[in-house]
Amino acid sequence: MSGKPEGNPAPGTLNFELFFSEKALQMKASEVRELLKLVETSDVISLAGGLPAPETFPVEIIKKITQEVLTHHADKALQYGTTLGFTPLRLTLAEWMEKRYGIPASDIEVMIVSGSQQALDLIGRVFINPGDIVVVEGPTYLAALNAFKYYDPEFLSIPMDHNGMRVDILEEKLKELKAEGKRVKFVYTVSTFQNPAGVTMSLERRKHLVELAKEYDFLIVEDNPYSELRYSGEPIPPIKHFDDEGRVFYLGTFSKIFAPGFRVGWIAAHPHFIRKLEIAKQAVDLCTNPFGQVIAWKYVADGYLDEHIPKVIEFYKPRRDAMLEALEEYMPEGVEWTRPDGGMFIWVTLPEGIDTKLMMEKAVAKGVAYVPGEAFFAHRDVKNTMRLNFTYVPEEKIREGVRRLAEVIEEEIKALGK
Amino acid sequence: MSGKPEGNPAPGTLNFELFFSEKALQMKASEVRELLKLVETSDVISLAGGLPAPETFPVEIIKKITQEVLTHHADKALQYGTTLGFTPLRLTLAEWMEKRYGIPASDIEVMIVSGSQQALDLIGRVFINPGDIVVVEGPTYLAALNAFKYYDPEFLSIPMDHNGMRVDILEEKLKELKAEGKRVKFVYTVSTFQNPAGVTMSLERRKHLVELAKEYDFLIVEDNPYSELRYSGEPIPPIKHFDDEGRVFYLGTFSKIFAPGFRVGWIAAHPHFIRKLEIAKQAVDLCTNPFGQVIAWKYVADGYLDEHIPKVIEFYKPRRDAMLEALEEYMPEGVEWTRPDGGMFIWVTLPEGIDTKLMMEKAVAKGVAYVPGEAFFAHRDVKNTMRLNFTYVPEEKIREGVRRLAEVIEEEIKALGK
Repeated sequence: MSGKPEGNPAPGTLNFELFFSEKALQMKASEVRELLKLVETSDVISLAGGLPAPETFPVEIIKKITQEVLTHHADKALQYGTTLGFTPLRLTLAEWMEKRYGIPASDIEVMIVSGSQQALDLIGRVFINPGDIVVVEGPTYLAALNAFKYYDPEFLSIPMDHNGMRVDILEEKLKELKAEGKRVKFVYTVSTFQNPAGVTMSLERRKHLVELAKEYDFLIVEDNPYSELRYSGEPIPPIKHFDDEGRVFYLGTFSKIFAPGFRVGWIAAHPHFIRKLEIAKQAVDLCTNPFGQVIAWKYVADGYLDEHIPKVIEFYKPRRDAMLEALEEYMPEGVEWTRPDGGMFIWVTLPEGIDTKLMMEKAVAKGVAYVPGEAFFAHRDVKNTMRLNFTYVPEEKIREGVRRLAEVIEEEIKALGK
Repeated sequence: MSGKPEGNPAPGTLNFELFFSEKALQMKASEVRELLKLVETSDVISLAGGLPAPETFPVEIIKKITQEVLTHHADKALQYGTTLGFTPLRLTLAEWMEKRYGIPASDIEVMIVSGSQQALDLIGRVFINPGDIVVVEGPTYLAALNAFKYYDPEFLSIPMDHNGMRVDILEEKLKELKAEGKRVKFVYTVSTFQNPAGVTMSLERRKHLVELAKEYDFLIVEDNPYSELRYSGEPIPPIKHFDDEGRVFYLGTFSKIFAPGFRVGWIAAHPHFIRKLEIAKQAVDLCTNPFGQVIAWKYVADGYLDEHIPKVIEFYKPRRDAMLEALEEYMPEGVEWTRPDGGMFIWVTLPEGIDTKLMMEKAVAKGVAYVPGEAFFAHRDVKNTMRLNFTYVPEEKIREGVRRLAEVIEEEIKALGK
């Protein structure tokens, strides 16, 4: 599309760099994305992606709903919408959350967003002053770091274990901060089947976190794209369920339980907070695409969502199982991994001393790719981890991919021993 | 949905205001929107809106395209997309702009955005440092002011006449600024059938503006949602057509030539600038909804767009004519208005001393609404103007609305004379 090489000044007089804002000069393309671009063009088994399997998209249902929407609701679906979102969808989601998660619809207001990524940006915009302390999990969702970073917070990264964020460590930190006269603005957590670690915050920790929020007067941003994708174990209520003060922002999305292509997500929060988020959204995109919103509304309201979730689970469970079995079978001693009850990702920790970013080239040469863990840490201080995705690639490829990966890791471990 | 009254602290311990960022505390709901909410619920003829007529949405074409897309391109339409946008749509738009506007496809890269409102926010994010001078027209597009304002520019407002922005006055200002050692970052213009004024920047002024951009080293943001809606007169090439250095950002949208409900717009600019805008977009919403993008692609690529535009024109022209005729017939002496060759709006100027915001209540009492002009000026220093929309309301209502409005204005003029 363009004949001009990227990065070079044009053959005119224009000095591009002189025009950018200070903040834009600091913006950098995600290395992970750049890495993945390489992988996409080659013959590699990629366990790196974060995409849902297209086989789970309910195409026939979408065809049916779309025709219905265009026949009966074209005036709403094709026109501009309000910034807050299509009201029948907002009400339907509030009811659905009450039924499903025990979050009283009367306690929340739902605002529709252009994918839950937009919720992260809007929350940054509305709540973060430069220097504000934002707590994240270590590791945490990469794109949340990117969204918040623009607003110049100071990240406090709290380690995780198999029961999610170490809320006891958070408490210690909160005490220290209080002693220094400092305060946390909010805690960001992917509470269930976390991206990237696959772990779920335990019930006790959820309650404890809410108690801490009250005691130390902070907010909680609960990002919950995966909880419906449960392949084993018992459901745990969202943190929002335990919130009786309006401290918790619940972020939901249709991307994993319907299809990402609509870019429809939602924030459920106290109406007073929603008012401000609404004003912020108005300036950035006026409204989320009403066509997708009206379709999403029919999908939930007509019961398709509840019918469809078990099918997605049925499709993904064997893939999760295949990956766990392959890890068990092939991985050398010294390698650890999480055993998620759901979601899309498994987190692998290699022996100290191995840098998974440096190892990537060898892995790709062997025909397998993953996401190096470094970028998921706010301070990029952990080098020996990686994220594996099990939703996009079929079982036999998962097995083969893990086998190849195990070979590479084995060589790295040997090299360490030298 | 919520039982709690807006603005009051909840019956817990939460002090909402303590959590907001400094910038969020400054965000205010648009008064215009609040005004319009009142109007929507009543029996008033509203010339205030800015909506396209739903009768112009090509519902049958959309039905057909959507089925095709879901049958043959579901994998693309329902999955996550790249931040830059769906490549076939980007290429198709580049070709279309070359054919239609003589903008060489090789000189630009196209990025898809979530409505052109998002383009305004991203441009603010990537180019405005606090205190940077941003030139806007007086009056200018309200939502552009809102989008840019977040980034704390200093607005320089340049008056308009029937040939658009007074580029000669801009030149004077540029000289003064240069003498003070100051520089303009960019000039924002809705070049054709401006919102709100309805006027079009003349060919000479377009060329002159590009010359000034070179001489004084600034960028130009050309927002062009309306140029295809031409009911009379000869087309003028976009400013981007005269850009041989990559200084001009061209913003396009499907909202007025297809349907707003998809929220698909685009930026065409030098690839070097697009790179940075792409990184900025990644943090705010990952990608524009692929479902809408794939549909928009078929709409342009299969020739529906070029077929459909004449039908939209045919639908709107009588409405524009009806409003111009009614203004001629009913308006008292001392009232002036623009005579747009296209677009959606007419701008009315009343005698000095009349405040259209104060007059609004009387107008609504008489059964007619408009948008007071004040909010369209960066410095809110003009009180006697208003914007009228002629696309949403049928001809007979336009006539009656203008008649009622003329009555109110006549009374105001009489009151002035006292």
